[in-house]
Amino acid sequence: MNILISNDDGINSPGLLALANELKKIGNVTIVAPLTEQSAVGHAITMKYPLRVTEIYKDGEFFGYAVDGTPADCIKMGIRNILKETPDVVVSGINLGSNAAINIIYSGTVSAAREATIMDVPAIAVSVASHNAKHFEFAAKFSSQLSQLVVKNGLPNGTLLNVNVPDLPENEIAGVLITYQGKSKWDDVYEERIDPYGNKYYWLTGKLLETDKDLKQDHFALKNNYVSVTPIHFDLTDYKTFEALQNWNIENFKK
Amino acid sequence: MNILISNDDGINSPGLLALANELKKIGNVTIVAPLTEQSAVGHAITMKYPLRVTEIYKDGEFFGYAVDGTPADCIKMGIRNILKETPDVVVSGINLGSNAAINIIYSGTVSAAREATIMDVPAIAVSVASHNAKHFEFAAKFSSQLSQLVVKNGLPNGTLLNVNVPDLPENEIAGVLITYQGKSKWDDVYEERIDPYGNKYYWLTGKLLETDKDLKQDHFALKNNYVSVTPIHFDLTDYKTFEALQNWNIENFKK
Repeated sequence: MNILISNDDGINSPGLLALANELKKIGNVTIVAPLTEQSAVGHAITMKYPLRVTEIYKDGEFFGYAVDGTPADCIKMGIRNILKETPDVVVSGINLGSNAAINIIYSGTVSAAREATIMDVPAIAVSVASHNAKHFEFAAKFSSQLSQLVVKNGLPNGTLLNVNVPDLPENEIAGVLITYQGKSKWDDVYEERIDPYGNKYYWLTGKLLETDKDLKQDHFALKNNYVSVTPIHFDLTDYKTFEALQNWNIENFKK
Repeated sequence: MNILISNDDGINSPGLLALANELKKIGNVTIVAPLTEQSAVGHAITMKYPLRVTEIYKDGEFFGYAVDGTPADCIKMGIRNILKETPDVVVSGINLGSNAAINIIYSGTVSAAREATIMDVPAIAVSVASHNAKHFEFAAKFSSQLSQLVVKNGLPNGTLLNVNVPDLPENEIAGVLITYQGKSKWDDVYEERIDPYGNKYYWLTGKLLETDKDLKQDHFALKNNYVSVTPIHFDLTDYKTFEALQNWNIENFKK
């Protein structure tokens, strides 16, 4: 089994290392990850600047390829230029911090997996729910089990699995649930500060408005110590509204 | 009617100017746009660096606010810090180049509108289908008509309208169609070059694989000289696969 790994925390992330070490037990692993941290870059791709690829060594051994771009760039570059054949599965992570509810939209980790899906390669995104995550064991093991299942069963065209794991030792994890994307969103606040030259600048801060109350919602499942597995896709069409718009007479604007 | 305008081509784009000039006829327009071009940044937001806001003047008159961040940053900053009250509608564009089919995923223009939708403000994204677009007249007029309709009728929570307009004089536009997101995707190729110091670098190139054949698909409608209006949302859950996953016994992995 040929496995391509990426992430958004960068090639030196402990989450990536934990994932790679576990997946090496079940297949040939190639790492193509961003040279620098790329959190919250969403599905950005690099078109206006060229990309460079650096071979990274750890303890004298070849570790992987670092691309000076975004997570989505890494997947495109990995599949098109670095690998000799299309991988059987792409696994993105293990991210430090959850990617549930609205955060799926901003996530570089999820976008790497989504780019693989766009390129017709089955993919999984995996996150542990703490920016100081300490417990990668179950997340890594579960990624391995799920990768094998994805390769065996296949996934529908255009669909990937987004996995979130509580930052807990395995015996404290309540279970695994198949979930929807939750509805919790951020209440953004820009903190105003003054730089040493007397000019204003703004930092994005805020808190998550936790509106999810159902264990079928990823964020709420995670909060209750469950692993969440959410199938997501990139067909953004709102089919229900498509029907409703028929009554707006939009099509008559130009007649 | 209070209207917030943004884009991803930057505050000096002719598309933004054409849009602002038209919308000023129907409401109070505030412009909050990226200081520099932000094409293909997707739904990136800026968290690791602070943002600055610059007041931009044109011909001695105040024109708008430039933010040194992404399109999504501009919407957050515009709604949270710059405007005194929540706008009635957000219009993002007019983008130079279509944002149809897979390009919706990469688009900063669409992401600006989507960020507004996340913040519960009705939104429209508007693009003209050429990177050297010359015909903004109909796109601007249609944006104005559609903005008024969106404010009057409302949009479902979480849904925005993504509009693409052919780069043609109004009398050559075939009509307006309500559409789905098409399936056409890019066949990516990285062009390898050598820099003046002998090092390799790679440019993303490629061509769009035009698989859409139905006038109900945005990209195909556009190719046939129609304006496309696609309702899109940010609930990425694939509900069909949610059901199928019940048979994978994933929930038994941890028991």
